[in-house]
Amino acid sequence: MAKIKTIGILTSGGDAPGMNAAIRAVTRSAIYNGFNVKGIYRGYDGLINDEIKTFTTENVSGIIGTGGTMLKTARSKEFMTEEGRQKAFETIQKEEIDALVVIGGNGSLTGAMNFAREFDVCCIGLPGTIDNDLYGTDNTIGYDTTMNTIVECVDRIRDTAQSHERIFFIEVMGRDAGFLAQNSAIASGAEAAIIPEDSTDVDQLAQFMERGIRKSKKSCIVIVSESPKCGALYYADRVRKEFPEFDVRVSILGHLQRGGRPSARDRILASRTGCGAIEAIIQGQRNVMIGVRNNEVVYVPLSEAIRSDKPFDRKLIKVLDELSI
Amino acid sequence: MAKIKTIGILTSGGDAPGMNAAIRAVTRSAIYNGFNVKGIYRGYDGLINDEIKTFTTENVSGIIGTGGTMLKTARSKEFMTEEGRQKAFETIQKEEIDALVVIGGNGSLTGAMNFAREFDVCCIGLPGTIDNDLYGTDNTIGYDTTMNTIVECVDRIRDTAQSHERIFFIEVMGRDAGFLAQNSAIASGAEAAIIPEDSTDVDQLAQFMERGIRKSKKSCIVIVSESPKCGALYYADRVRKEFPEFDVRVSILGHLQRGGRPSARDRILASRTGCGAIEAIIQGQRNVMIGVRNNEVVYVPLSEAIRSDKPFDRKLIKVLDELSI
Amino acid sequence: MAKIKTIGILTSGGDAPGMNAAIRAVTRSAIYNGFNVKGIYRGYDGLINDEIKTFTTENVSGIIGTGGTMLKTARSKEFMTEEGRQKAFETIQKEEIDALVVIGGNGSLTGAMNFAREFDVCCIGLPGTIDNDLYGTDNTIGYDTTMNTIVECVDRIRDTAQSHERIFFIEVMGRDAGFLAQNSAIASGAEAAIIPEDSTDVDQLAQFMERGIRKSKKSCIVIVSESPKCGALYYADRVRKEFPEFDVRVSILGHLQRGGRPSARDRILASRTGCGAIEAIIQGQRNVMIGVRNNEVVYVPLSEAIRSDKPFDRKLIKVLDELSI
Amino acid sequence: MAKIKTIGILTSGGDAPGMNAAIRAVTRSAIYNGFNVKGIYRGYDGLINDEIKTFTTENVSGIIGTGGTMLKTARSKEFMTEEGRQKAFETIQKEEIDALVVIGGNGSLTGAMNFAREFDVCCIGLPGTIDNDLYGTDNTIGYDTTMNTIVECVDRIRDTAQSHERIFFIEVMGRDAGFLAQNSAIASGAEAAIIPEDSTDVDQLAQFMERGIRKSKKSCIVIVSESPKCGALYYADRVRKEFPEFDVRVSILGHLQRGGRPSARDRILASRTGCGAIEAIIQGQRNVMIGVRNNEVVYVPLSEAIRSDKPFDRKLIKVLDELSI
Repeated sequence: MAKIKTIGILTSGGDAPGMNAAIRAVTRSAIYNGFNVKGIYRGYDGLINDEIKTFTTENVSGIIGTGGTMLKTARSKEFMTEEGRQKAFETIQKEEIDALVVIGGNGSLTGAMNFAREFDVCCIGLPGTIDNDLYGTDNTIGYDTTMNTIVECVDRIRDTAQSHERIFFIEVMGRDAGFLAQNSAIASGAEAAIIPEDSTDVDQLAQFMERGIRKSKKSCIVIVSESPKCGALYYADRVRKEFPEFDVRVSILGHLQRGGRPSARDRILASRTGCGAIEAIIQGQRNVMIGVRNNEVVYVPLSEAIRSDKPFDRKLIKVLDELSI
Repeated sequence: MAKIKTIGILTSGGDAPGMNAAIRAVTRSAIYNGFNVKGIYRGYDGLINDEIKTFTTENVSGIIGTGGTMLKTARSKEFMTEEGRQKAFETIQKEEIDALVVIGGNGSLTGAMNFAREFDVCCIGLPGTIDNDLYGTDNTIGYDTTMNTIVECVDRIRDTAQSHERIFFIEVMGRDAGFLAQNSAIASGAEAAIIPEDSTDVDQLAQFMERGIRKSKKSCIVIVSESPKCGALYYADRVRKEFPEFDVRVSILGHLQRGGRPSARDRILASRTGCGAIEAIIQGQRNVMIGVRNNEVVYVPLSEAIRSDKPFDRKLIKVLDELSI
Repeated sequence: MAKIKTIGILTSGGDAPGMNAAIRAVTRSAIYNGFNVKGIYRGYDGLINDEIKTFTTENVSGIIGTGGTMLKTARSKEFMTEEGRQKAFETIQKEEIDALVVIGGNGSLTGAMNFAREFDVCCIGLPGTIDNDLYGTDNTIGYDTTMNTIVECVDRIRDTAQSHERIFFIEVMGRDAGFLAQNSAIASGAEAAIIPEDSTDVDQLAQFMERGIRKSKKSCIVIVSESPKCGALYYADRVRKEFPEFDVRVSILGHLQRGGRPSARDRILASRTGCGAIEAIIQGQRNVMIGVRNNEVVYVPLSEAIRSDKPFDRKLIKVLDELSI
Repeated sequence: MAKIKTIGILTSGGDAPGMNAAIRAVTRSAIYNGFNVKGIYRGYDGLINDEIKTFTTENVSGIIGTGGTMLKTARSKEFMTEEGRQKAFETIQKEEIDALVVIGGNGSLTGAMNFAREFDVCCIGLPGTIDNDLYGTDNTIGYDTTMNTIVECVDRIRDTAQSHERIFFIEVMGRDAGFLAQNSAIASGAEAAIIPEDSTDVDQLAQFMERGIRKSKKSCIVIVSESPKCGALYYADRVRKEFPEFDVRVSILGHLQRGGRPSARDRILASRTGCGAIEAIIQGQRNVMIGVRNNEVVYVPLSEAIRSDKPFDRKLIKVLDELSI
């Protein structure tokens, strides 16, 4: 392996708050340690189409506290094809990029892993996704901010729920993972959470309504993890039919969960993993994701990071059950 | 008219941030000036069903900064009937309430006006609605907070819009009035607003898209006033069909626009109009809404306040046009 | 007077949230109406030293929601001298600037007025100050955001005041004007405000403490307007001496009152007055400040705007008195 | 040891956001598991003076999102004496409290430990302090919220620092620990942090200023950990003398760091440790603090929790160094 001189950086997949703090950290730490930095725009598409710019420390000034990604992002279809990745590799050669730092979620890191295997490129991943579904890191960049955003929204909706004595089904993001739903339910004092990890035989809805009635609470918040079939609208409809005495409303939080100024914690996670990416490169690491586990920076093989079975702490279900009495 | 000794207070219709600050102001100012205060729960329904509690200054401690309404609220169907209002009047007599302060929007103040006429009850209205559609007051209680909430949400969504280069149609509340949509579009730097007041012959959508293309902006935010037929989903669908090259998304902000801690301005407006209600009662005013116009507390006859033609400043359309170039 | 082709814009004096929204509005409205725009950096110093850059609409992209001023600002001592203003005029001629838009407070607009008189330059002022002390406009750009920031801080401090049963003296900005102190006291539910406009013969402090004791409230918030001699520290010391049974603390909010994302209202005020400045120039207005009064854009002669006697509504003192019982 | 039937709960020492969420969790989890709950007001003073109230689940409704502590708090001097603790124990017997849950920081848990030893009372501690200085738990309740509050304040002050090109020394809390200062410096993109853990022989100030000058940055933020002798004012004075060319300002954030709505993370930590306290009691644990380490609820002997040597991760100093270039 030749000596690494130039590091390329890109963001890919859904944007997450803290991505800019990560771009800043990678760029500055790289320059601090003597590397050149090139910013690649629009994710893997920018690698394919050579949308690349040399970065100095000034390029990343004033972005630590901003949402979104200044490098822009995309879900590249072309990069999923062999031809696309071949083109991307040609750009890498042409631009003399020796190592690639990819900030993104599951799909983006899978792309990085495949690219690294096919073309023997040094790829380092940073966990940038609001869903917290990457294995090997306690948290992903963006998760904490999104948690705070959701809780702030639920706090607002609760004002109306209590004033009007209504039942609200609030749908939050999370893809196939219930981290956002379960934890935001605990944090917002919701009465229940409906999550993918807890599809037991028992009908959760009936259980919840029965419990709600037992408590004779008059307003009620249920957090529902997004789902193509069984989202908040589905449950609201069922309750309207089966319990017509309730005044039921739905709120789908949607895209506002993604943006916004990153929380202190996300900025620190982005800063630490960003510096960690450069240290990993210096140490000769390849094809790992930089995570923070037990408050220590760790290197997780990309193949392990993208495993879909990040463990869900079932004790959190008990916590919510006890606290919603 | 007998001397007024006891003042009843209720909130009615959709909840609005600042209603609690208004309840506090009415209660404390009344007690300061020697009146008894009775809190009526669940709007006019509580008047019909005698859900009433005597208030001291402590009952309204610690609520100035909270959203929703601690008196709860409802849209009473029974109060729209003669029997309902008759029952309400019987409660008023039984509870020895001499004057009624109603905090709410158009429908609630219409109810107050009719009740005042039929039973010769002194009714004072406070403008409590996020829609800003009451005549005779520069702002309604709740409007400023909701404006800030919307702008905060749009700021967040813009992060994603720019990162992914998408067009977002964001639907905001406002009932038949475009105050929230037009002003939040200006405040958030949106590219366009679609409002009820501006349904000219010209197809606004084509106009907007053509202008968007001319500017070759790649991301774009359009604020759409809620509407049963022509909301954000409608416009997004049309753009998807007619301009398939764009990546179009929709966000319906929904109920989170209602709640939350009231802004400084809404708390001040609530405090001033709340004190104003008691002063009006002392001065022998009846059946007026207390507003603030040109920074002065004013009394607006209820019949005038509920007129649906609060003027919309068309110059704001020009402001948005100039600034979205 | 020759036809105006190029408009220069600068910010001066203390920064205020919304200044960037004003810079954006002036720039875009100017370009929309066919003018050239030049951004002048560091206030009048930049005019003296020719730190000037031609602006396009892109220069002001993405700044509507940011605090501070991207043109930077200063309190120029050199501009207070004849030589300084002479140099500034030479830059104006060299850069072919035909009209100057100055965003700032009392001192900055006084500078603009003098400059306009001496060199026959068209100067338009925008009211950019958190102090709200400019005559002829209901609000100044920055005042609303600062009000919200103060209230948010007081809400936080009240948590501690109540938990520990303490008396807090909280010092806020405002220079010689009590707008911020009096209104933030009402909005935060403070027990008292000490403001420059209300220095009656009666000893306010004793009055307040006696009232506090009468109410037997155990925690208490007093908002104090900044003052070189009689700030929060002064009053806290006196209370500690005269009422040693109380646990007294001081918080001086300081510079964090200036920054932050502007509120919806400040962004709208900045946008409307910014467009108004260009319209005024088109109409041939000179040496006026653009304000908004009674929800209408108005032109206020600079000499009138800087008069120090913006009326303080003494009824607000009564509102606070009634509500802090 | 007799069977535990009734659990007393108190908050002590400086208030921290999330204490209410912890009170709620302890109360509800206790009731869920069949215990009686008694709320003790004003910390150990309330135990001494028998200010105690039986709690139902309703007593802790609606408090999960509020700052401060609804049980009020104090630093009890009487409890530091043998007589005080004797009186407290008599109350415990009289009220038939079988176990005591204490939410507080170092001093409060030391008090709990001593009380447990002297009178053989089951004491469970929860880590409630913004300073994050308790051993055995990754975070303390309140730390995350305070971090976000500080970062928000620094973001605001940076607007002014950049607009005026000034150097700001911002003083934050933390007692003898630099967690808040170092981490908030990273999160806010500050140029330097001055912390107790890093008082090396080298003159930090000269180092920092020299580095600042080398970078020729014109504005600059230094976060300073509070200190009786060497706080922000001390460093600002020195810089003013030694580098008179800089415009130096100080902001002491003070008490506003304590209050405010708790972050999602603090609410979850409070909920998990609150439920954990009850589970520990059920399991027969005594005299432990409930923490969360590596995302698992853990029991830490009180004697270990109050050790003053919680390790400070020195790699964070390197992260800040690299990122402030």
